[in-house]
Amino acid sequence: MNGDRQCLSKAITLVESHQENDRSLAKQLMSRIQAVGTSMRIGITGPPGVGKSSLIEALGLEMIHENQQRLAVLSIDPSSAQTQGSILGDKTRMIQLSQSDLVFIRPSPSGTQLGGIAKNTRETIRLCEAAGYRYILVETAGIGQTEYLVSTMTDLTILMHLPGSGDDVQGIKRGVMEWADLMVVNKADQPEDQRVINTLKDLHSVLHFLPSRGHGYAPKVLSVSALNRKGIPELWGEIKAFEKHINENGYILINRKQQLVNSFRQQLPLRLWESMSVMPGVKQNLEDTEEKILSEDLSPEEAVDLLQDFIFASLRTK
Amino acid sequence: MNGDRQCLSKAITLVESHQENDRSLAKQLMSRIQAVGTSMRIGITGPPGVGKSSLIEALGLEMIHENQQRLAVLSIDPSSAQTQGSILGDKTRMIQLSQSDLVFIRPSPSGTQLGGIAKNTRETIRLCEAAGYRYILVETAGIGQTEYLVSTMTDLTILMHLPGSGDDVQGIKRGVMEWADLMVVNKADQPEDQRVINTLKDLHSVLHFLPSRGHGYAPKVLSVSALNRKGIPELWGEIKAFEKHINENGYILINRKQQLVNSFRQQLPLRLWESMSVMPGVKQNLEDTEEKILSEDLSPEEAVDLLQDFIFASLRTK
Repeated sequence: MNGDRQCLSKAITLVESHQENDRSLAKQLMSRIQAVGTSMRIGITGPPGVGKSSLIEALGLEMIHENQQRLAVLSIDPSSAQTQGSILGDKTRMIQLSQSDLVFIRPSPSGTQLGGIAKNTRETIRLCEAAGYRYILVETAGIGQTEYLVSTMTDLTILMHLPGSGDDVQGIKRGVMEWADLMVVNKADQPEDQRVINTLKDLHSVLHFLPSRGHGYAPKVLSVSALNRKGIPELWGEIKAFEKHINENGYILINRKQQLVNSFRQQLPLRLWESMSVMPGVKQNLEDTEEKILSEDLSPEEAVDLLQDFIFASLRTK
Repeated sequence: MNGDRQCLSKAITLVESHQENDRSLAKQLMSRIQAVGTSMRIGITGPPGVGKSSLIEALGLEMIHENQQRLAVLSIDPSSAQTQGSILGDKTRMIQLSQSDLVFIRPSPSGTQLGGIAKNTRETIRLCEAAGYRYILVETAGIGQTEYLVSTMTDLTILMHLPGSGDDVQGIKRGVMEWADLMVVNKADQPEDQRVINTLKDLHSVLHFLPSRGHGYAPKVLSVSALNRKGIPELWGEIKAFEKHINENGYILINRKQQLVNSFRQQLPLRLWESMSVMPGVKQNLEDTEEKILSEDLSPEEAVDLLQDFIFASLRTK
């Protein structure tokens, strides 16, 4: 809580650990920390290639330049399911930002399941807040359900677009746009780029059809050039206006409480399975059962029945 | 097994049902059906707006025109998490195809969780095969993890691209491309469209960096115009060549067995939670606990501990 970055790093490593000892320590730690002051949690999502790192670099520098307050940048980077390899992999992103004493940058651990990422990120956010970080930027690699995930743990979600992706706007973005509060079209380098103008128009027209959000703040559409640092003060201004709005109407607290309930609902089934999978005999039974599925002696459905019976019986006699 | 389409429809509705009676009947049904002959399961995925329905219409007509064999088209259409609304919603897609007696088209039930969709789709595929369908096309709305999901239940996965999405190729597609066997650039309407040429080139260059697939068939890149029915015979030829290859080297069976094991691994935790959530007292306890989280008397992590203790204790005294 003195704001020691090395200590914060260690604490995050602790909550990410899968070791039994560490988990018990992590639980103690999480039950003792308190949020220092109020923070603002901002999610930044969008397809890879849209320039999230560049935007965070530009926006982050603008933020710390203006308010001299501490900024944490967390990355959610789900590895590809097949190779377990990192998609981003790039350690040289956000060069200027990473040199500031006010800034703490932390990638998510690789090779972790989506459920684990959610839990780790939520706890990491709370640790950063306890260490006095005023703004928390949560960036996702934006593949699959992580785009939704980030909106379940932030106060404001920024969805980034590329110019000229108008074809997709009516389709792919709709589901994602429903949980975005602010649309940013990046790579708007030329003032009169027709693709930027079209994309802004398309996004505006889709906004009309979205359900209204609990915070009552109408979603905005902005264009920026992260690389050329254009439109960044306007974006920062918009974030501040949103923050003021949700603090005044109390949405920030209502939303965070609801997020806690949702987090509980997500964690419970995962935890139960985790506990059951390490019970005596379960691992061996799983292996034997998978052999029988491979030799076609059991269907997956029959196997599920058998395993459930075995696990429930084990619990009864424990 | 006589191929009665109405009967097949009813069977699918039965396996999709959540009612206790239906589930026991569905289980009996699934344990009795047998696959008639061999089938080929083809997944078609890609971002909304890429023209999946148009491609299925064109490819399906080509397939049944040539071989007069029966074709089932299944859609995986996960509703958006927030509104539960259907993303596709359009009942008028694939007009010509839907008029053929050889073709069976079935959308996935809406408002279902991803885990449920996976189970339903797997069972629906098996029902269609038992009813004598030779080719099964599984289409996804392509948001989030469904792109991966479809590759876990098919023999061949086709990934569709829009021309000119070159910016994204190095990024967003990489994770998805790892489980695709065939790349199709749609909307190649003009023979000399520079965007098509660039996209083909980009895709080719990414293919080199992908891990080799278990079937040993090098992924191909094709361009088509589904609307103008261009490149469709070539695509169909490529599918047949792939089918021949994986039948000859035995990959089709090895892969399907591995998919069954994976399906078991996915289903087990979901089923356990499903069984536990309906145990006496659990629902009430969940509601009380969520109240305590909202009033900040419990953290989500503490709540998970308490619920796990309660559920395991209930199982012991049952």
